[in-house]
Amino acid sequence: MRGELREDGIHVNDLELHNRGGYGRREGSEVILSTEEAIYLLEKGKIDVYDDGRRLDLKELFLRASGEIQDFEIKYAVYRDLRERGYCIHPGIADFRLFPRGGKPGKTPSEFLVIAISERRSIPLEDLIKKLEMCQRLKKKLIIAIVDEETDITYYEVRWRGMEGFSKDLPSERFKGILLNDRVIIWNERAREILHNTFFFGELVNSTLYLSLVESAYLVSKGLLILRNVVGEEVGEEELLKICREVEEDFDEKMKVYKDLREKRMVVKTGFKFGAHFRVYEKVESLSELYHSRYLVHVVRRDYVFTPPEISRAVRLAHGVRKSMIFAYEDEKIRYIEIRRIRP
Amino acid sequence: MRGELREDGIHVNDLELHNRGGYGRREGSEVILSTEEAIYLLEKGKIDVYDDGRRLDLKELFLRASGEIQDFEIKYAVYRDLRERGYCIHPGIADFRLFPRGGKPGKTPSEFLVIAISERRSIPLEDLIKKLEMCQRLKKKLIIAIVDEETDITYYEVRWRGMEGFSKDLPSERFKGILLNDRVIIWNERAREILHNTFFFGELVNSTLYLSLVESAYLVSKGLLILRNVVGEEVGEEELLKICREVEEDFDEKMKVYKDLREKRMVVKTGFKFGAHFRVYEKVESLSELYHSRYLVHVVRRDYVFTPPEISRAVRLAHGVRKSMIFAYEDEKIRYIEIRRIRP
Repeated sequence: MRGELREDGIHVNDLELHNRGGYGRREGSEVILSTEEAIYLLEKGKIDVYDDGRRLDLKELFLRASGEIQDFEIKYAVYRDLRERGYCIHPGIADFRLFPRGGKPGKTPSEFLVIAISERRSIPLEDLIKKLEMCQRLKKKLIIAIVDEETDITYYEVRWRGMEGFSKDLPSERFKGILLNDRVIIWNERAREILHNTFFFGELVNSTLYLSLVESAYLVSKGLLILRNVVGEEVGEEELLKICREVEEDFDEKMKVYKDLREKRMVVKTGFKFGAHFRVYEKVESLSELYHSRYLVHVVRRDYVFTPPEISRAVRLAHGVRKSMIFAYEDEKIRYIEIRRIRP
Repeated sequence: MRGELREDGIHVNDLELHNRGGYGRREGSEVILSTEEAIYLLEKGKIDVYDDGRRLDLKELFLRASGEIQDFEIKYAVYRDLRERGYCIHPGIADFRLFPRGGKPGKTPSEFLVIAISERRSIPLEDLIKKLEMCQRLKKKLIIAIVDEETDITYYEVRWRGMEGFSKDLPSERFKGILLNDRVIIWNERAREILHNTFFFGELVNSTLYLSLVESAYLVSKGLLILRNVVGEEVGEEELLKICREVEEDFDEKMKVYKDLREKRMVVKTGFKFGAHFRVYEKVESLSELYHSRYLVHVVRRDYVFTPPEISRAVRLAHGVRKSMIFAYEDEKIRYIEIRRIRP
């Protein structure tokens, strides 16, 4: 089948390409293909492409497109890969519309918006939020396809995520602790029983309960903990927060998310071993359940810029231990974005 | 048994503590304990500690030590944990000497130097190198014990690592490629056969071979690749390097390590999916062996500063896929440091 390169795309006189194959858009008796579509069909030997009577080979068409369209080789790699996997995929805003398996234009609405990017590009959180808002308006899901150095593609679904737990509220007793650098120590059997064994704060080291700074600041803010320093002077909430901010640069952001999750009645513990701020549980009824958390939550500022290797690392690590990877940021309220790897 | 707090430690009149338990150092008929040792023995009910005739309880001694010794609670947590695991551990330079299981002072030399740090402290590469040099002089191995927010401890062994491979050298033919943004494309069946299938450069996408920038720069430097841009102009080595440096900030560091590994006859591919620069193979004889690499190598500058969460993340990820995590840096030559988690 002969295709003619024009200004608005490659014109082909074969409606079946559109009707059966789901390629291009119809205009009268013609189908107009995008460059990705034409190159793919040329690669498959389904069409030839002519420019002003001269036939273009695959390499020539590809190089032309690469000269004209930014990151064309990245977009084409994704287009091609999804076509090869048997999906109908259409050029559209940001960068493609992907149809559910078996679906195509005119038959079904598209399900996903797909963004194709090189592993070298960074992704500002702000952009991700805009894309998610767009998806929400259009009632689509969002996929980011990251093309690595070796042109291997990893797909991530990105979505807002509601967080809610069913754990116990707060204790009704007040305890006393001692602030030591970046942690608080409590020597008190009842504190162990209540704070640790019942409400899952802190960690026991022999007879001693150790609380993290964020746990301590939370309990202090709720009036449930009174602190002194090593030499016995009282440490008030303001002073504690000052110390916390010195120890951890992003303490305030982290604290807000901790508070939000605790108030959503989730149990929140450190995620250090997994390279994230928190591991988060929906429901914990006994200490043994602290063995497996459902979520890893990492707190980022609103002006944060993701890099693809970082996303790859965080998500792979979380999935490797059967957890969901969640990034939390502050908007009018705290919002949670889940990024998970999918295999289309 | 009664211990007396003096300026140089806690004096106890019981040589068995040293001879059988491996605690403290002998001086005449006395054993002099460090603060960690005394607190541990006090916690276990083995000694009492008196200061000028007044008995100190655990809490008081602990708080005094915390006031006097920086990060005492961190060091004590590690001391205590290793003692509980049945090891003999002694205060010493940086921060402890750890004896092999069953060993103790006078009986066996210590095997490890153990550094205890909070997950909040950062670790400059320069410090790590100094510690490794010290260990080399003393013929010890190096352990870093990281104490997280919840006072849970993760142990890492850190060591220099020789890298050596047994893969094929270089092809003896020269190929032509086209530079597209951050990758090179080659349309040539023989290039696929030689570069990809025999020497494991690049990745195939259908009939096309895609090379990464670092692979391309390496092949160009060896005179095995000639590049043109999309409009057909030749791209020389200098120009290519300029472009590479624009695309990747640390391109030069990365390139040096890539070159070193290739010259050590290892096969080097992108480690993007694992959040590291390279995955590295000792020997690859057929494409199917590219499925599992032995190493992940991440390149860092000499002035790099590690954070414990980052070490935790990288090592956990690497171990999760049965690979060794290696950090590479440039000294007079390229050096490789392996960090691996151990469970003492």
